[in-house]
Amino acid sequence: MKIDVQDFESLVENFQQRVDRALDQWLPAADVNPLELHQAMRYAALAPGKRVRPILVYATASALDIPLDRVDGAASAVEIIHAYSLIHDDLPAMDDDDLRRGRPTCHRQFNEATAILAGDALQALAFYILSHDPRMTENASARLQMIENLSLFSGSRGMAGGQAIDLAAVGKTLNIAELETMHIHKTGALIRTCVQLAALSTESLDETQFRALDSYAKCIGLSFQIQDDILDVTGETATLGKKQGSDSALNKPTFPSVIGLEASYEKAQELHQHALQALSIFGEEADILRYISAWFVQRKN
Amino acid sequence: MKIDVQDFESLVENFQQRVDRALDQWLPAADVNPLELHQAMRYAALAPGKRVRPILVYATASALDIPLDRVDGAASAVEIIHAYSLIHDDLPAMDDDDLRRGRPTCHRQFNEATAILAGDALQALAFYILSHDPRMTENASARLQMIENLSLFSGSRGMAGGQAIDLAAVGKTLNIAELETMHIHKTGALIRTCVQLAALSTESLDETQFRALDSYAKCIGLSFQIQDDILDVTGETATLGKKQGSDSALNKPTFPSVIGLEASYEKAQELHQHALQALSIFGEEADILRYISAWFVQRKN
Repeated sequence: MKIDVQDFESLVENFQQRVDRALDQWLPAADVNPLELHQAMRYAALAPGKRVRPILVYATASALDIPLDRVDGAASAVEIIHAYSLIHDDLPAMDDDDLRRGRPTCHRQFNEATAILAGDALQALAFYILSHDPRMTENASARLQMIENLSLFSGSRGMAGGQAIDLAAVGKTLNIAELETMHIHKTGALIRTCVQLAALSTESLDETQFRALDSYAKCIGLSFQIQDDILDVTGETATLGKKQGSDSALNKPTFPSVIGLEASYEKAQELHQHALQALSIFGEEADILRYISAWFVQRKN
Repeated sequence: MKIDVQDFESLVENFQQRVDRALDQWLPAADVNPLELHQAMRYAALAPGKRVRPILVYATASALDIPLDRVDGAASAVEIIHAYSLIHDDLPAMDDDDLRRGRPTCHRQFNEATAILAGDALQALAFYILSHDPRMTENASARLQMIENLSLFSGSRGMAGGQAIDLAAVGKTLNIAELETMHIHKTGALIRTCVQLAALSTESLDETQFRALDSYAKCIGLSFQIQDDILDVTGETATLGKKQGSDSALNKPTFPSVIGLEASYEKAQELHQHALQALSIFGEEADILRYISAWFVQRKN
């Protein structure tokens, strides 16, 4: 699909609204018992947010000409995993954050026990969706592969492992390789999964195309995090929806703190270029993914 | 398989050892990064315990003449889900327990953040196993069904929901129906899943047999919890591996506190009889399941 930047922005908005409708349907109703648990799950998963991960699922599906209703389940599942990880990351024993996306964090709005359980139940819900959604690909083996990828990339060798490395790094000096390892796990793994889940929804992709998309996803997963670190230094609290400087306040190593602000900008740009190179085997149908890579390194929140 | 009580005890021991070997292989190695997270996962999942849930998976497989290596994955997955739920239930914001199975709880042995993440990563691992284990049934649709059942029964409408009801019930007076609802979710749902996962590993089961096994599982899931409540009143701390009276100390409603000790015994026996009735369509091949039902209501720890 040939698109310009206005088309892209309008598509992003459509994808955001689309996943919010899907999430609303998958999440347990707020008036069904146990009430508080279900309300906390909805509060966290439907909180205002960029919906970066579902957008990436939909964008990959668009680039590969996959009907969007076939990836609604995958888009919902990755956002739900992301939402659960934010709830748990914000807990007093972890980052101890009071504010998330401009609102009280889940444990501040409800209570700690409910927040822990809401995260747990959201994780289970993500796997429920991938195993259950009747509109997804009928290829059961491909769906098992999606579940395998999501579980691997969200577990101890993925997102949860990245968070553990992050917590262990507080107050320590990391070198650039260690910092990259942390972010590749903490943020990159789930972003990579988004592209993979969409790619597994079609059978018309060959190995070379799958690998190219995966390389692209690895690049933008890291550039996304670098931009996050940059915004933690340069952004404004109101735009960010969390306290500016909150990572540095926690004495967490970030790209700017390790290699400086200028080198961080350059690193992000370099990854953007690598992402574009990875997509070179695709034609203009992949323009939407090119725009996403640009968005990741140019965004202001 | 025709067995006597000695055979049963020896089988149970074999199953315990078998699942411990399987768990050891599925869990990330303790010397692989992130070290502390992986050590906490192993500490919790390999802790001394009865292994009731995997035993039930293996016993159902035995009764249905399913090779045990086909259900090693399911047996590991249910124990891992159980282990994650115990880690999170023990947290300060939840039951705030220091002792579990005779050892410091995970957050006491490590720290709270690591315990939260270990629980999260264990949940992901359970779904990884069900989607990945090459020795399980080759029927990909049946495996998707297993994942659907495990995610449903461990989520907000199952185990996690039961824990939320439990927390909300502290200090309140529940009637017997409310207490049953809580336990059907908190403990019963996962026990029911054990039987279902084994049953889904064969294609030779008809609908009537599947339903009979499910009825059996529902009965023993509740009788197991009633016996737990009874032991909380009558058991000894050393035998239980947790503090005797810890539930009543937390002011949690239990079967003895709601209907009295004598009626609790009777209720457990009644459920045991219903479980046996449910199995009446099976011959002596299901004796192992009959012994399990008896064990659940006679056990001392």
